[in-house]
Amino acid sequence: MPRTAYVNGRYLPHGDAHVHIEDRGFQFADGVYEVVSIVNGVFADEDGHLARLARSLDELQLPWPMHPMSLRFVMREVARRNRVRNGLVYVQITRGQAPRDFRFPVDPAPTLVVTCRSTKFSAPQHLEKGVAVITIPDIRWTRRDIKSVALLPQVLGKQQAAEAGAFEAWQVDPDGTVTEGCSSNAWIVTRDGVLVTRAASNRILNGITRLSLLAEAQAAGIPFEERSFTVEEAYSAREALISSASTFCVPVTRIDGKPVGDGVPGPLGRHLRQAYMAHVGVADPVPHVGIADPVIAAPVVTRP
Amino acid sequence: MPRTAYVNGRYLPHGDAHVHIEDRGFQFADGVYEVVSIVNGVFADEDGHLARLARSLDELQLPWPMHPMSLRFVMREVARRNRVRNGLVYVQITRGQAPRDFRFPVDPAPTLVVTCRSTKFSAPQHLEKGVAVITIPDIRWTRRDIKSVALLPQVLGKQQAAEAGAFEAWQVDPDGTVTEGCSSNAWIVTRDGVLVTRAASNRILNGITRLSLLAEAQAAGIPFEERSFTVEEAYSAREALISSASTFCVPVTRIDGKPVGDGVPGPLGRHLRQAYMAHVGVADPVPHVGIADPVIAAPVVTRP
Repeated sequence: MPRTAYVNGRYLPHGDAHVHIEDRGFQFADGVYEVVSIVNGVFADEDGHLARLARSLDELQLPWPMHPMSLRFVMREVARRNRVRNGLVYVQITRGQAPRDFRFPVDPAPTLVVTCRSTKFSAPQHLEKGVAVITIPDIRWTRRDIKSVALLPQVLGKQQAAEAGAFEAWQVDPDGTVTEGCSSNAWIVTRDGVLVTRAASNRILNGITRLSLLAEAQAAGIPFEERSFTVEEAYSAREALISSASTFCVPVTRIDGKPVGDGVPGPLGRHLRQAYMAHVGVADPVPHVGIADPVIAAPVVTRP
Repeated sequence: MPRTAYVNGRYLPHGDAHVHIEDRGFQFADGVYEVVSIVNGVFADEDGHLARLARSLDELQLPWPMHPMSLRFVMREVARRNRVRNGLVYVQITRGQAPRDFRFPVDPAPTLVVTCRSTKFSAPQHLEKGVAVITIPDIRWTRRDIKSVALLPQVLGKQQAAEAGAFEAWQVDPDGTVTEGCSSNAWIVTRDGVLVTRAASNRILNGITRLSLLAEAQAAGIPFEERSFTVEEAYSAREALISSASTFCVPVTRIDGKPVGDGVPGPLGRHLRQAYMAHVGVADPVPHVGIADPVIAAPVVTRP
């Protein structure tokens, strides 16, 4: 089936979907984006993603290209035309086309692009065996709280991870603390069983899935702390995780080649993923070969 | 006259010049660029710009979209079709179109865009009265030596300058030293008459015009130092300057609202600009209401 993309008011065949060479997204990375998962036809955490989009736009003094309610409609229409019930919808807004000048154009007409594609989310082997991460210096700018398309450092980091046979690269600030993955938030479970992820600030992107997982942890009575942790602390963690809109919550079983805990996915991460899947309204299709642990005895509501 | 742009092998009407929405330049800022001035039909410092382009491509493991000699031909053909004898040629290379994934595509076909437009370079009043700069925190990533299109921080800085009524914003590292302007290198002349600009490193983009100006300074026997300077030192400088491919060398007469020296363009900056114009093969058309100063007595070769 041919794919359809939305570009500035038109639904186009994907291959014919273009922006002008003087679009400020292309020349200046002057734009923002969001990725929302569609799970069994439900847009996961859509309110959170649109709230963050509003914040990113505001921080860059970018206008909405259309009313947010209309954007929700376009996202659904693109999903419908692409017959996606499980997949990702991608929304990008830039400051539009203008003669090349760093300064904002006087009367900008923002560019809006919406695409959608089916995906299987996390690969079963990632959930069963966990993934490997490497650690790299965080070389990004200081406004990582804005979900901009100036993603070149993250591109280089993910490529470095791939070349090292890893799934993700955890970026590390000069003070030795982990900020986050290149396209995910970073989590550990301490030896005392405390779930830890970095507090939101301009040093990280405040993940929407991150926020939902914190809410699930709170609801389940899992002790958690929002604070920085060092690479050394991660090496000695009982469990480690990454979270993102496209992977939800995936166990990390190797950091820089060293096994995390006993080197297999742990119960707290598995529990959090189940809770998140229930939150978005679907039972996780991956079998959970459970290890007895009090924490997974916490009630998880799974919608039918 | 309708403008013509070059995009991936085709010369197109400017309005029809597009890239795909999944071009990695648009989605990831995964690309580099150069701007070369054309002065009386001569491509100024072209070898330097192409050498820096080669370095940027290499740092990002981006392949050349065509042989550099062919690129020189395309740049000339775009200038010819647009009948530009004094203006700017813009070259952008990205990692091309690929399904969205941070990691490098396996077999990328890079995107090449070349545009050209006439310009008057520096406005006469900028040369006669100088320009104002403000200072702002340098919030960029740590690989500023790569001329990438991830320019969002510079966009925000230039906009901040414009809103403050200034021409440029000088970015300042946490240690209080000026790195560079958002689209230019920063220079001062100390009270002792020493020309100072920051040494090349990953903290700044090594300007091609910067390198030519240093060579001119050396040839003219002007004492110069490549070293960092603080905002405080800039406040107390005798002269200040900015340099770039599109402005050459322009006097700065106000920094954060404070006059530089006696608040008018100084002789060393004027001399350097004249020397640069001679270097690119043209006499500067702007009248020089000279202040007697030994430094401007240094011989300047102006080609006919």
